[in-house]
Amino acid sequence: MSIETVPVRLGDRTYDILIGAGLIARAGEEIVRRLPGVRAAIVTDGHVAAAHLDPLLASLEGAGVGSTAITLPPGEKTKSFEALQTVVDGVLAARLERGDAVIALGGGVIGDLAGFASGIVRRGMRFVQMPTSLLAQVDSSVGGKTGINSTHGKNLVGVFHQPQLVLADTGALDTLSDREFRAGYAEVAKYGLIDRPDFFAWLEDNWREIFEGGPARTRAIAESCRAKAEVVARDEFETGDRALLNLGHTFGHALEGATGYDSGRLVHGEGVAIGMALAHRFSSRLNLCSMDDALRVERHLAAVGLPTRMADIPGDLPDADRLLAYIAQDKKVSRGALTFILTRGVGQAFIARDVPSSEVLAFLKENHPR
Amino acid sequence: MSIETVPVRLGDRTYDILIGAGLIARAGEEIVRRLPGVRAAIVTDGHVAAAHLDPLLASLEGAGVGSTAITLPPGEKTKSFEALQTVVDGVLAARLERGDAVIALGGGVIGDLAGFASGIVRRGMRFVQMPTSLLAQVDSSVGGKTGINSTHGKNLVGVFHQPQLVLADTGALDTLSDREFRAGYAEVAKYGLIDRPDFFAWLEDNWREIFEGGPARTRAIAESCRAKAEVVARDEFETGDRALLNLGHTFGHALEGATGYDSGRLVHGEGVAIGMALAHRFSSRLNLCSMDDALRVERHLAAVGLPTRMADIPGDLPDADRLLAYIAQDKKVSRGALTFILTRGVGQAFIARDVPSSEVLAFLKENHPR
Repeated sequence: MSIETVPVRLGDRTYDILIGAGLIARAGEEIVRRLPGVRAAIVTDGHVAAAHLDPLLASLEGAGVGSTAITLPPGEKTKSFEALQTVVDGVLAARLERGDAVIALGGGVIGDLAGFASGIVRRGMRFVQMPTSLLAQVDSSVGGKTGINSTHGKNLVGVFHQPQLVLADTGALDTLSDREFRAGYAEVAKYGLIDRPDFFAWLEDNWREIFEGGPARTRAIAESCRAKAEVVARDEFETGDRALLNLGHTFGHALEGATGYDSGRLVHGEGVAIGMALAHRFSSRLNLCSMDDALRVERHLAAVGLPTRMADIPGDLPDADRLLAYIAQDKKVSRGALTFILTRGVGQAFIARDVPSSEVLAFLKENHPR
Repeated sequence: MSIETVPVRLGDRTYDILIGAGLIARAGEEIVRRLPGVRAAIVTDGHVAAAHLDPLLASLEGAGVGSTAITLPPGEKTKSFEALQTVVDGVLAARLERGDAVIALGGGVIGDLAGFASGIVRRGMRFVQMPTSLLAQVDSSVGGKTGINSTHGKNLVGVFHQPQLVLADTGALDTLSDREFRAGYAEVAKYGLIDRPDFFAWLEDNWREIFEGGPARTRAIAESCRAKAEVVARDEFETGDRALLNLGHTFGHALEGATGYDSGRLVHGEGVAIGMALAHRFSSRLNLCSMDDALRVERHLAAVGLPTRMADIPGDLPDADRLLAYIAQDKKVSRGALTFILTRGVGQAFIARDVPSSEVLAFLKENHPR
């Protein structure tokens, strides 16, 4: 069994991401080696619990880690104040202390929610991420961003709280649907598009093998984690470069909001895929990048089966003005000016501040399916 | 008008505490000088709003700071998940950004709640404390601890989030009841008891003038803020010395919990006063400090009208075993051992880890009014 280790270097908050098959079954020994004497509350959802909770409990028990499980309904709606309170109360009811750990076993929703809870119970407990979706393994479980949604928008409430350890069991990905796997793949492609053109070219050549599993999949996940870890190490609290990770997310979040976070219509990774395609197309419209590069990006995302246009979203969308309002409410707004991640070509993304909202509106109108 | 400035030195999170009469009326200019271009959401309660909200709004408007007010019911019950969500939603509805500020105008409840909200909206906004009670001016508004209560105990949920500025208007204290002022005074005396024996002796000689107002009051507040700022600068995240500030709080929180946070029976400062008297008496029982010192502390607290014994609390208390359970659930518990702040005499407090619960139980039984 080959495990890849990617360190996230953050001074005294440095931690390792372990990537490989079988990590759920050996979670107990990996955790107790780093956090001796720890007790744990596992936060998970009903779907993930059915597949992975029993092996995890057995592994923890075998390593002498006392634990309790808090199981929530699956889905984005669980990133709510109500679910947060449920987790917080459950952790306190288990009488866990500051030195004990919350373990997030699940996808991005569970990781964000459990991480937030671990950041606020007793003003900060230990935290272990065990991401079971591709999206969570390459994105949300790395970097310390936690949070819940608000009626005003996605991820508007949360804290920065780094885990002590991330265990990404690639075996867990075998139970994902194709749609879920593709949605996570959008974030993998994102790292190539930000600043790793060679990685993007490698993905264009090897995506089929990544979807099938095997060494290419583990390599793609490890490379994605390395890419994210580098950006996070440069800018933990998103005062600068970290915003690059939002490539595709400003448009993407707006579309998620506009579809009411209805996963039947659009899941996060699909929003990011459309958002990345739009970011390249918008950059081309502003004469920042070539139309060839914009089309190349669309072609690859479409090849793996991801949506790339607003018209690919089933059902009606709000008009362009309403979409702009969703963008303005996005948390990457800085002092009234619109900030976008734009690009000069594949692997050449940059932070563009003061993008005129009139340009955004005109672009949205041109690309609106109506 | 004389304003004292106490800096809290925390690297790039360093900030000033301004102390003096009339600071509410000049809040706008003080804020805009340090945070140019900021907009603000004022969080306050109905009682404080009636006395101070209009002057604050006028001051902010005069300085060109756009603001909105969120007014909550007064009382400890407002430190709840429900009120937190109300504040978070109000701040988001006002479309404030990361660089904008939440202003806490009120006592400790409002400061802890608003600080928590400012720490989690958009993963951390700016924060200005405007404490209007003596307790908040000398304690809760300094040091960055924020939070709410849980059914499992007090302040069990929150974050560390430092303010950018604290404006302590001593004029606001004129509207406090004697009981509220005395409750805050318990925390003033605490700083003397921790490590400033000269300050405690000065308080014994000058407490009447502090209660009447004037220069002695401002001096006592500034000295308290300096004392707290020094401890916080040494240990911002309470991994060591900061626990000294909990002198009297382990017993105090247990008594607050045991009385259901019913302010008719016991307010926080009164719990701390009894807790400090008990901590000295317990230290004397353990032959750590002299009974003379324990009696001296009780004498001074009783002189200003504070309670010093469990029997001073109106109504019935749970038995000693139940009180011990409240203590064990307190968040200062570390890995199962009971941690107490004990003392070798006036101004000689220290952190005692591994205090046997049997000793605590025996002491509680001896001092229980039943």
